[in-house]
Amino acid sequence: MPHTIGFIQDLAVIMLIAGIVTVIFHRFKQPVVLGYIVTGVIIGPYTPPFELIHDEATISTLGELGVIFLMFWLGLEFSLRKLARVGTTAIVAALAEIILMLWLGYEIGRSFGWKTMDALFLGAMLAISSTTIIVKALDELGLKRERFAQVVFGILIVEDILAIAMIALLSGVASSGAVETTHAFTTLARLLLFMTVSLIIGLMTVPRLLHTVARFRRDEILLVTILGVCFGFCLLVVKLGYSIALGAFLIGAIMAESRARHAIERLMVSLRDMFSAIFFIAIGLMLDWHVLVDYAGPIAIITAVVVFGKILSCGLGAFTAGQDGRTSMRIGMSLAQIGEFSFIIASLGQSLRVTSGFLYPIAVAVSALTTFFTPYLIRAADPLTRRIATALSPALVSLFSSYTQWLSSLQPSGDRAAVLKLIRNILTQIAINLAFVAAIFVSVTYFAKYAHSWLITWTLRPPVRSVLLWSAALAISLPFLVAVYRKLKSLALLLAEISVQPAATGKFTASIRRALAELVPATAMIGIFLMVAALSSGILPPVELLIIALSCAALLLLVLWRWFVRIHAKLQIALREIFERPPET
Amino acid sequence: MPHTIGFIQDLAVIMLIAGIVTVIFHRFKQPVVLGYIVTGVIIGPYTPPFELIHDEATISTLGELGVIFLMFWLGLEFSLRKLARVGTTAIVAALAEIILMLWLGYEIGRSFGWKTMDALFLGAMLAISSTTIIVKALDELGLKRERFAQVVFGILIVEDILAIAMIALLSGVASSGAVETTHAFTTLARLLLFMTVSLIIGLMTVPRLLHTVARFRRDEILLVTILGVCFGFCLLVVKLGYSIALGAFLIGAIMAESRARHAIERLMVSLRDMFSAIFFIAIGLMLDWHVLVDYAGPIAIITAVVVFGKILSCGLGAFTAGQDGRTSMRIGMSLAQIGEFSFIIASLGQSLRVTSGFLYPIAVAVSALTTFFTPYLIRAADPLTRRIATALSPALVSLFSSYTQWLSSLQPSGDRAAVLKLIRNILTQIAINLAFVAAIFVSVTYFAKYAHSWLITWTLRPPVRSVLLWSAALAISLPFLVAVYRKLKSLALLLAEISVQPAATGKFTASIRRALAELVPATAMIGIFLMVAALSSGILPPVELLIIALSCAALLLLVLWRWFVRIHAKLQIALREIFERPPET
Repeated sequence: MPHTIGFIQDLAVIMLIAGIVTVIFHRFKQPVVLGYIVTGVIIGPYTPPFELIHDEATISTLGELGVIFLMFWLGLEFSLRKLARVGTTAIVAALAEIILMLWLGYEIGRSFGWKTMDALFLGAMLAISSTTIIVKALDELGLKRERFAQVVFGILIVEDILAIAMIALLSGVASSGAVETTHAFTTLARLLLFMTVSLIIGLMTVPRLLHTVARFRRDEILLVTILGVCFGFCLLVVKLGYSIALGAFLIGAIMAESRARHAIERLMVSLRDMFSAIFFIAIGLMLDWHVLVDYAGPIAIITAVVVFGKILSCGLGAFTAGQDGRTSMRIGMSLAQIGEFSFIIASLGQSLRVTSGFLYPIAVAVSALTTFFTPYLIRAADPLTRRIATALSPALVSLFSSYTQWLSSLQPSGDRAAVLKLIRNILTQIAINLAFVAAIFVSVTYFAKYAHSWLITWTLRPPVRSVLLWSAALAISLPFLVAVYRKLKSLALLLAEISVQPAATGKFTASIRRALAELVPATAMIGIFLMVAALSSGILPPVELLIIALSCAALLLLVLWRWFVRIHAKLQIALREIFERPPET
Repeated sequence: MPHTIGFIQDLAVIMLIAGIVTVIFHRFKQPVVLGYIVTGVIIGPYTPPFELIHDEATISTLGELGVIFLMFWLGLEFSLRKLARVGTTAIVAALAEIILMLWLGYEIGRSFGWKTMDALFLGAMLAISSTTIIVKALDELGLKRERFAQVVFGILIVEDILAIAMIALLSGVASSGAVETTHAFTTLARLLLFMTVSLIIGLMTVPRLLHTVARFRRDEILLVTILGVCFGFCLLVVKLGYSIALGAFLIGAIMAESRARHAIERLMVSLRDMFSAIFFIAIGLMLDWHVLVDYAGPIAIITAVVVFGKILSCGLGAFTAGQDGRTSMRIGMSLAQIGEFSFIIASLGQSLRVTSGFLYPIAVAVSALTTFFTPYLIRAADPLTRRIATALSPALVSLFSSYTQWLSSLQPSGDRAAVLKLIRNILTQIAINLAFVAAIFVSVTYFAKYAHSWLITWTLRPPVRSVLLWSAALAISLPFLVAVYRKLKSLALLLAEISVQPAATGKFTASIRRALAELVPATAMIGIFLMVAALSSGILPPVELLIIALSCAALLLLVLWRWFVRIHAKLQIALREIFERPPET
């Protein structure tokens, strides 16, 4: 009971002061997020006259729930469809921004004389802009529906994915102590594999489940189900060694495809608001004024680098990808801040014990300053573009606009576009099926490693055990392998049709095409087999047993080929239904 | 970080299992609340194979938030207007129910050989029906809009108030160790005083504040403000020694009068659902199977007593107050269960360390059983009424219906009704103003006691200190005292007009009436002065200083009479505006 009273008192103090501060911040047209951080500083241990919070640990635990709900919400607003529409610009601009800011952050950190890991985490902290703050700023300025805003959201989505990859990479780098490229690539590959498989399995099960529960028309049951699936998935992701933020984002993106999406948003919005407030306040609690005073110089420099570096990298990236000058400037100006991801990365460094204590308050200070500038920068974009246009010589201006026109003329059209689209579709399907095969073998290997003692009590000798496990994995993978083979064959046929022209090969055209259409898939399948063998090296049986297993599989294929094709077709239809269903109105 | 992961894991387990169980319960048309309790039992420490929860303390702390949000919601749905419409029936039936069930519970407990405190808490546990479960059951049966349902809600509101008084009384009884009638009455008086004053001050400030914040049209800011005010008020109430449940209920009732009420409901519903789920699950966590088996006999008897006792007391109460037989039966059948209040009272007993450990699981078991029966009982009400009507002799039936008709003929009408209404209004206003006066003197006395050391550093000698404090309290009370005097005078005039008839007093009529109109208020004011002196005995100055203070006050009154009247009129208008404003549509 006394613990409870202390907890209620903490919440009361937090929410009362937050209420007052946010009302003041709103009145002076400043972002509310800034108000939360200031609240945290006011009630925090570093601000006299006395500490107002009893149990900082519980508050920061509740703040973790804030991260979950914030990332869940980002996932909910994430959309593969939206991403496709502004794809190229978003990818180019986001890559330009992340690479430049990572490099700039790292170099600045080194020039301050910081250790490598601090400099690296500084670079990561500066790389990603703040979705929350941009969405709020554009909303408050009434620009949310403009075309440039759509591109900005696209860039933010790409950033979200790359940021999650970055979190995974940084965790890997921090635990191994050095930047290992191969390790980085296997981490990224495993992450992509996990994301693909969990997205697909999730998309095939979760929206259906939520739709069924939503039809009960009992908000309470729907809410408990959403929270159960969300926390459950986060827990799975954490147990696999990834961050909770990734889990929340993925499950949010999965639930976004549910027909009950609007109900989910309605139910989750106040949980997000309450716990994200606690999250940002917990950030303020950790802000030590003394560090800010000691590091005033670095903070000023880093803030300037964030603002100018982001305007430059995002603006130029957008322009290179074909946006006009004015739009590019607006895009650059919108993205010139850091936010929630920087805190997540700073706290990652702290929880892994690889960064110094000063990094977190610096992240908070730079984020507060750049957040403060954001609305003014967005409003300044148009005047600045006009001034630059008048300052530049007319020749330069026409050069720039002819670049934009040349780029848009490069877009494929007509037959060529249709063929390219077809090839892209086939490649995507092959990739998805291969992801499943890989996931099955990796999972079985993982299972064999962790269920070792349990398997021994079954008194299986190692060769028997591995041949059984490997065969099981192969059997489950067969529908996907069959699909891969069929897609490869149609791809090979298509490519043969295009590349082998009768003009060059004359009467051999038909047989060369046929040979290609047989040889390409066969070679590819051998490559795939080698990949699978490498993935499942932990349970790969001795060669003689392997051959027996493969022969059995071949026999199975002969007998059940049509059945495998049918099963896979069903799965594919189920998946397509989810993506092609019009969004709920 | 490991603590956080454990916490997320607990939440994941809770929500996953709760999701599955509630879906099953919903499918079989059982109340979801029961599903939560079963979830708690499944994951609890008493159910094999192993304990699924790491940190039961944190979960039950979050469950406390559930109590706050549940009681806040009850307050939000509480309405003085609604209460007035079904007032008499509700009060009679609720009193009949509470008195009978308290007595029955106590007697059963004693007959089981339990100690006095256990028996008393058992009585309190059985006294109050469950708003949550009734609302849900009537909703699911589609009976929410029927007339009898309105009466049931009225009874539930009266029960809510009496239950809060009961919690306060039980806390007092538990700390003093015996049932002291005087202590009980001062506790109840102080509670009513605190409720009145905080309701009025709250009603004059909180709805206005929320309306201002709601006009920002930023849900986030409104939510933080609501939570700040809610937790802040709960904290104040706890510091004054009352229960958190009372605080949450009062602040909910205050916020219900805000124009932003619908926004408040929309924002708070998922917080209520999430945390009340955790609350009910935490109850299940504490359920020890062995106790249930050991106490199977008492549980069966108590369940039977709850069902028949409540049907009898509520039904007869409603019938006595003038409802017809069919309605009374439906009312009795609806209220035949116990719920959330029983758990609150059981955990109160446990946290005060005055009850035995078996009381909590018994409360949970009886609540689960009676909750299970509720929908069936409601559906059985009409057939049962018909069967009883056929079984009774026609003479008895006509006797019953003539009682109902006789009662409704007793209602005052015409001039008499108008005069009665006028007198009631004046009495209410006098009571409210007296409550303020009492609250001011109690608060100043309280302040003097706790700011003792601080006042000493001001080097005030005791007599000077008390005369200053007492005079300050008197000065603040003057507008209210002036109002009381004026209302008393108009009441006396009215009463003189009615009771002193020219037929009896002849030519002295006018002077007798004038004498009465002067004497009654003067006598009453002396009584009020004595009450104030008793309330402020801690700071009452010596007689000579007291006379000086009173003379100063009299002088002040002479000079500023009109100003005091004006101030009070303004306050009264502000208060009336809140109550007479039509509810938001």
